[in-house]
Amino acid sequence: MDPDAVAKAFVEHYYSTFDTNRAGLAGLYQEASMLTFEGQKIQGVQSIVAKLTSLPFQQCKHNISTVDCQPSGPASGMLVFVSGNLQLAGEEHALKFSQMFHLMPTPQGSFYVFNDIFRLNYS
Amino acid sequence: MDPDAVAKAFVEHYYSTFDTNRAGLAGLYQEASMLTFEGQKIQGVQSIVAKLTSLPFQQCKHNISTVDCQPSGPASGMLVFVSGNLQLAGEEHALKFSQMFHLMPTPQGSFYVFNDIFRLNYS
Repeated sequence: MDPDAVAKAFVEHYYSTFDTNRAGLAGLYQEASMLTFEGQKIQGVQSIVAKLTSLPFQQCKHNISTVDCQPSGPASGMLVFVSGNLQLAGEEHALKFSQMFHLMPTPQGSFYVFNDIFRLNYS
Repeated sequence: MDPDAVAKAFVEHYYSTFDTNRAGLAGLYQEASMLTFEGQKIQGVQSIVAKLTSLPFQQCKHNISTVDCQPSGPASGMLVFVSGNLQLAGEEHALKFSQMFHLMPTPQGSFYVFNDIFRLNYS
């Protein structure tokens, strides 16, 4: 499968899960996974999902502007770089964000998120 | 050395080289290096430097807002995620950007840029 198509499918799956069933993101991380969220470093699937489900907003909708991807080297990983905006329920203005994922293959032929770095783009 | 300190030193070196001697960035890439610049995919040190030196502006100054880093896995690589703004000579407003680098170790104990993805943050 074309890497760009894999990256796009991952991004759509990730953000639709985030927006509809945030706890379901647990299926995309593993124990070695790392998240840096607005500079805060978190490791492991449980801690990452605890962080994401305890953010100070409930309903939200991610709108994606760009998705770039590159192979990350010999381990068959893939880097995915996303820009977009995050609309929170009841807020007039969307928040712009940039996020990168390093996807690593699983023995089952799928991917999990090994690295995840998220930043809001303050204007 | 602390990975955050390595990332910060790399970022300072990269952008000061970009702003003062753009052709000198050749020393930071190798033949396998990949750059995705505003969605355009470029590979190899010569093509990457040709792209960066032919951008439609000469004098510029990068100002860095945030630097995040994570180890990228077993190959001892490091992911560096940068946000900042780019001031072009003669332009009133700076351009906001996000950029990620995947640094891989060299046999000499240094790093080179294996992956590089750059996006302007349009508002």
